[in-house]
Amino acid sequence: MLQVIRVATEKRVQLQNITAQVRDIVRRSGVNSGLCYVYCPHTTAAITVNENADPDVCSDITRFIGKLVPADFGFDHAEGNSDAHVLSSLFGVGKTFIIEQGDLLLGQWQGIYFSEFDGPRNRTVYVSIIKEEDVQS
Amino acid sequence: MLQVIRVATEKRVQLQNITAQVRDIVRRSGVNSGLCYVYCPHTTAAITVNENADPDVCSDITRFIGKLVPADFGFDHAEGNSDAHVLSSLFGVGKTFIIEQGDLLLGQWQGIYFSEFDGPRNRTVYVSIIKEEDVQS
Amino acid sequence: MLQVIRVATEKRVQLQNITAQVRDIVRRSGVNSGLCYVYCPHTTAAITVNENADPDVCSDITRFIGKLVPADFGFDHAEGNSDAHVLSSLFGVGKTFIIEQGDLLLGQWQGIYFSEFDGPRNRTVYVSIIKEEDVQS
Repeated sequence: MLQVIRVATEKRVQLQNITAQVRDIVRRSGVNSGLCYVYCPHTTAAITVNENADPDVCSDITRFIGKLVPADFGFDHAEGNSDAHVLSSLFGVGKTFIIEQGDLLLGQWQGIYFSEFDGPRNRTVYVSIIKEEDVQS
Repeated sequence: MLQVIRVATEKRVQLQNITAQVRDIVRRSGVNSGLCYVYCPHTTAAITVNENADPDVCSDITRFIGKLVPADFGFDHAEGNSDAHVLSSLFGVGKTFIIEQGDLLLGQWQGIYFSEFDGPRNRTVYVSIIKEEDVQS
Repeated sequence: MLQVIRVATEKRVQLQNITAQVRDIVRRSGVNSGLCYVYCPHTTAAITVNENADPDVCSDITRFIGKLVPADFGFDHAEGNSDAHVLSSLFGVGKTFIIEQGDLLLGQWQGIYFSEFDGPRNRTVYVSIIKEEDVQS
């Protein structure tokens, strides 16, 4: 049950909310209980979870990480995007979610974000659903 | 098999050892082989794995991350806890563990820590167990 | 289906490519569709995913993280490797991969790296394969 989400980012660094797309895949899967794995097949992007209420949180994060990993550090990689590669390793290319009662189990304030560090680009996200076997019967 | 662990943190930034609680859930599940997924449904906290021998390691980590992500960076978010949101994305809201021979498979020095970045608070941790299907019979 | 990869690192900080070993385990498993979980049972190392084309990317990452988490910060831990413990929590001790059509599903430029932060050492990596149950029949 591999599913694909397409993301078109608009800035170099951007947290794009993909919660609705992931939730839709979970609901359509018909799986009542299990895991949902969201994977980014790129090396200058990542998947993260953070607040989906106040948009200042995402803008604070994107602004801060530009200071945390400065693009002008003196990297050697000729493409000039090593800061994005570092951030991909720090944020992580995949996140796992719990499926419970046929739906994505998230905390009240949580959203799932495709984390773009070297956009704008057309990006792909893979979503894989693992059904939990009944272990109690 | 969704299980819940309750954590009451006592400081703003704190690594609280939840290894015993996770191990207990794994043992009680009766699952011999599979995965155990530990998930934090909060946006200012995380789950991490680190040394459970010398307590200086945890205090070194909590002290260092206060310098890595300074609370006084100049964040916009009105709640004043954007440093905690950044750290949640850097540490990650979930960690997966291997179940082998009915027990949690950890390295000799590893412990599982609920990572509080904006406490003290009452927190929740979800634990989901996935049984490995026998793929060789 | 727990499998073990042995890694002998040669430097204090090093990203060692283990993609071929992980891929071999996936192919030999006979699992057509599922998840592959790669776990590092050490507290001064991690698993990461990054570019496997230009070696400058890995050297940029290892050089930068030495500045991000300076060994001379003033840590208390007597073993003198708290920087490595911090990096282990930032990179994360495990990564999950998708198995599709009997093979590891990676992005075009992605490789899997054992991330050594306190070598040289002989290290162990665990790989666990979870077969996806057929949820549509």
